[in-house]
Amino acid sequence: MITSVRNSRVVEARKLNRRRERRATGKTTIDGPLLLREAIAADIAISEVFALADDEETVGLAESAGVELLAVTPDVLRSLASSVNPRGPVAVIAIPPPRAITATDAVLLWEVRDPGNAGTIIRSAASFGFQVLASRDTVDLWSPKVVRAGVGGHFRTPLIEDVTGIEELDRVGLVPLAMTTRGVAIGKVDISDPTPVAFVLGNEAHGLPAEISDRVTNVTLPMPGGTESLNAGVAASIAMYLRMSRRPQ
Amino acid sequence: MITSVRNSRVVEARKLNRRRERRATGKTTIDGPLLLREAIAADIAISEVFALADDEETVGLAESAGVELLAVTPDVLRSLASSVNPRGPVAVIAIPPPRAITATDAVLLWEVRDPGNAGTIIRSAASFGFQVLASRDTVDLWSPKVVRAGVGGHFRTPLIEDVTGIEELDRVGLVPLAMTTRGVAIGKVDISDPTPVAFVLGNEAHGLPAEISDRVTNVTLPMPGGTESLNAGVAASIAMYLRMSRRPQ
Repeated sequence: MITSVRNSRVVEARKLNRRRERRATGKTTIDGPLLLREAIAADIAISEVFALADDEETVGLAESAGVELLAVTPDVLRSLASSVNPRGPVAVIAIPPPRAITATDAVLLWEVRDPGNAGTIIRSAASFGFQVLASRDTVDLWSPKVVRAGVGGHFRTPLIEDVTGIEELDRVGLVPLAMTTRGVAIGKVDISDPTPVAFVLGNEAHGLPAEISDRVTNVTLPMPGGTESLNAGVAASIAMYLRMSRRPQ
Repeated sequence: MITSVRNSRVVEARKLNRRRERRATGKTTIDGPLLLREAIAADIAISEVFALADDEETVGLAESAGVELLAVTPDVLRSLASSVNPRGPVAVIAIPPPRAITATDAVLLWEVRDPGNAGTIIRSAASFGFQVLASRDTVDLWSPKVVRAGVGGHFRTPLIEDVTGIEELDRVGLVPLAMTTRGVAIGKVDISDPTPVAFVLGNEAHGLPAEISDRVTNVTLPMPGGTESLNAGVAASIAMYLRMSRRPQ
């Protein structure tokens, strides 16, 4: 039983709260039984699982997956978790290796900063069959908070970070569609075309830079309420749903 | 300048973090300049505004709206705000008086517990022209966290709390459509019918009780990703968008 928050394995795991450390090690942490089950089902490499001594569900999961289990006190668990009142477990996992962008439907996050929005978009993307691309200054898709909001989507669809510009979309033949408030109503754009698309989402506060929005087709979700206010995760998810439901079979 | 978190007006405002106190007084607090502007624009009664002494934007807003402004220290502001690092202001506002359900499109939250989900749904509902109904055991729609996630939607669409059952929908002729994972694909339901609908959303963890889902039409968003996982705010928003875009003009 690990009783100290200064235990070396606990300290190493806690360092993964920093993006730099995640990048250097290729690892991150995940919180809770649902994400652990999803990671096991997706054959993600799991280094170790920290859990309360009486957490029988996790003991069973770790045993069946052949993963090392470390019993910890509630204080140690709290020092590791990204949630405020963790019931555990916290697992250290390997971030899947980088992949290339493919010629399939995508959503590109450009300077999206809110972990909840990024996670929600990844969750919807996995459900609707979209790969998720992210610019360098988007929130780290593998931060524990984003993974938590992703509810397993991270393990079910490709995530490609460090995208440097929309040229990378052109290269594989993806048609970029910028989601803005002053574009063509999405119902009027032919999103049933067989060519794969990439919905491009900008920053929550200041939207997309002109260097992107001026160069590509802009699409908008009509809002008869007279306001231009949708959560970024909601806007991206509606666009993906519409494309998915009109996708050529 | 108020420098103590024990100042009586600060104490009274802080009590509004409790649902019981909000119900007793008919007041709540809102955080940040955006919500204050929205409240002023919607002619919401504002009792007082707490702001940092150097917050010139709020001074200007309060003056133009004729609202009492109380200068406070950063510590006092932090004790009042629902966000972790408030830049201010925090305003005490009157919750609009209860309204009756009308024969217009609606979303009914049934035991929805997450403030972020409830707020996101209110934001989308305001954008797509839906009234928002909530069961007694749904999160308080006027809690500061829900209002924050609503980004002004609270002031732009009717909110009706304490709904006791789907009989209340029948009474005004709303057709209930339960959002579940085992219903008819939403694309196959005629949601362009002129009769107003009410999408019914259940609890994030255990969904809708059988007493509701067994009695009404169930609709589902198809997810080719093979999982049944969408954020509740996203699912409700997609349904509202689809209905809005097929609504008879």
